[in-house]
Amino acid sequence: MTGDLIYVAVIGAGGVGSHSLNQLNLLSKSYPNIILVLISRATKSLRALDPQKGLSLESWEKDLDASTSPALSIEQTIQILTLLPGSCVLVDNTSNQDVANAYPECLRRGISVVTPNKKAFSGHISLWKQIQEAAYKAQPGHDTKGLVYHESSVGAGLPIISTLKDLVDTGDKVLKIEGVFSGTMSFLFNNFAPVDGEGGKWSAEVKKAKEAGFTEPDPRDDLNGVDVARKLVILARICGLDIESTDSFPVQSLIPTELERVKSGEEFMEKLPQFDSSMEELRNEAVKEGKVVRFVGSIDVGKKALKVGLEKFGRSHPIAGLKGSDNIVSFYTERYGSNPLVVQGAGAGGAVTAMGVTADLIKVIQRLS
Amino acid sequence: MTGDLIYVAVIGAGGVGSHSLNQLNLLSKSYPNIILVLISRATKSLRALDPQKGLSLESWEKDLDASTSPALSIEQTIQILTLLPGSCVLVDNTSNQDVANAYPECLRRGISVVTPNKKAFSGHISLWKQIQEAAYKAQPGHDTKGLVYHESSVGAGLPIISTLKDLVDTGDKVLKIEGVFSGTMSFLFNNFAPVDGEGGKWSAEVKKAKEAGFTEPDPRDDLNGVDVARKLVILARICGLDIESTDSFPVQSLIPTELERVKSGEEFMEKLPQFDSSMEELRNEAVKEGKVVRFVGSIDVGKKALKVGLEKFGRSHPIAGLKGSDNIVSFYTERYGSNPLVVQGAGAGGAVTAMGVTADLIKVIQRLS
Repeated sequence: MTGDLIYVAVIGAGGVGSHSLNQLNLLSKSYPNIILVLISRATKSLRALDPQKGLSLESWEKDLDASTSPALSIEQTIQILTLLPGSCVLVDNTSNQDVANAYPECLRRGISVVTPNKKAFSGHISLWKQIQEAAYKAQPGHDTKGLVYHESSVGAGLPIISTLKDLVDTGDKVLKIEGVFSGTMSFLFNNFAPVDGEGGKWSAEVKKAKEAGFTEPDPRDDLNGVDVARKLVILARICGLDIESTDSFPVQSLIPTELERVKSGEEFMEKLPQFDSSMEELRNEAVKEGKVVRFVGSIDVGKKALKVGLEKFGRSHPIAGLKGSDNIVSFYTERYGSNPLVVQGAGAGGAVTAMGVTADLIKVIQRLS
Repeated sequence: MTGDLIYVAVIGAGGVGSHSLNQLNLLSKSYPNIILVLISRATKSLRALDPQKGLSLESWEKDLDASTSPALSIEQTIQILTLLPGSCVLVDNTSNQDVANAYPECLRRGISVVTPNKKAFSGHISLWKQIQEAAYKAQPGHDTKGLVYHESSVGAGLPIISTLKDLVDTGDKVLKIEGVFSGTMSFLFNNFAPVDGEGGKWSAEVKKAKEAGFTEPDPRDDLNGVDVARKLVILARICGLDIESTDSFPVQSLIPTELERVKSGEEFMEKLPQFDSSMEELRNEAVKEGKVVRFVGSIDVGKKALKVGLEKFGRSHPIAGLKGSDNIVSFYTERYGSNPLVVQGAGAGGAVTAMGVTADLIKVIQRLS
């Protein structure tokens, strides 16, 4: 089927999206059958006048800036793709729930989905099940080929989802998954409770992380633990566990109860120093045991138990020794025995997140062509 | 193309091969379109009487034992596959050079190849180039779809080759690759020069490793460094370096010159204690610097420099802290910056090597169906 055209639509052209589009440009040199038919971002969109020719991957940024067309809804996007005479891929670089909700419809229409968006896979299990059902399998009833890949929904470009899928699909028994799944939390605790030397005050470290761009605009969106919980839900479901939602298991929030309802991120940052002593206490408690405190997530597959929160680790433990904003994920399985399969590295950032998206897109293109 | 039959031939049914066949049995539950048409091992073979029905994946072991047919040559195997009316995959679980030499012919005939066999990818570069040329690309001139996957040729089932390919294919610039690539060497040095406590005498550790089944029958086949050199050649070529062969760069052998020509592994083991003092010296030299000695391989991509041999590492370095017979590979790239992407875990053993083979087979089946 050499040369069959593959039509690509990209939603989101911000931090991840712009890297993703630039990597797509590079990819099109090896796969000249890729045609970019539309880009849509929050405020505007750009459509190819001639879908057989597509948009320019060299000048997409300038062309999108110059466009006067409003953003397209996901329904409009699906309509446009459905009318094209070949295989289509939707690259969703947003973290939008509405777009996520439309994945089953995409897949049923044979539109493949590639995305770092966690929403669809970590939301209510009904959506997860609809996606699994609609995604192509080599079984009767699947005439159109809608594939779905979402490597970057956990650990950005790190090979975490693909590795877990390979373990499961080849018949290994995954026993436990444990790790640091948030670049922000990693950065905060590597600095607040370093293995060597002393860390600063908790509120000062949060401020530093915020200023370095390692937190959401309102740091509470990182400190509530929900981001880590979402990633655990995704991995647990790949292991076959029917986790209903992120509310189904204990998730420790690092937001002091008193600050949960303050109005703005600014007010939160102002008041946070009042609560430094309780974090200080946790740090000292660990130090007394010769340990350091880290914010981790774990899945005990046999017990169907997921957990997100603070734990203490010996100074020589790989989780204690993490650097910068790195993630680490350890897969304990029957085949790998007492020493886990470990993947480690940057788990956030535009370029590495886009890398996971592009690597997924390559797999989809290879399966479609 | 739901339900298109995929014919699979498996060569080698030993340590890796038997695990691979058992995993294939499991896989056939999800992919009922897989048909096992032949198994061939050193002394005998088994062919499906009716290629549309295939061999039993449940009783293959018993059936192969009972077979009176002699082993098939790779030429015979290719002939059989060529006559089948659909997509074919050759699973080569041997480390045989003749089979490796036949990959280009397989690919040209549209037979896909999945293998842990290092020989084809680490031998002379002419064979590597023939394979790359013959393998399917979405380009004119490739009418039949011969795909080639060899994850387990480096680090068994660990996601090393797939990760490196993703980095390269998405346009990251790989700067350096460094790691412990041999389970045997890892086991030897983790015991000989542990981070905590004292190791035994060198010859005693080699004996222990041999008795635990962690070495080749003649341990010199591990100690000469060639196995590590082969793996480096494979990774370097994926990075785009034209490395002619394992003779193209410095490879340190741990076989004392005086013992290179002794006749048997037994005689080698008998005489090895005479050389303990030189290894002792290396260990002490490292200890004085607060370090431990490890057997590593590295690729400096920019300088096109490959190197295999002993190096010293600080006690807190991840390479120093390895356990058991684990491998570790660090990818330093432009996107990942100062902290590398790291993959770690068991890099040898029948089940995990077969896992890499089976995961590759899934990818091939997905692309063919």
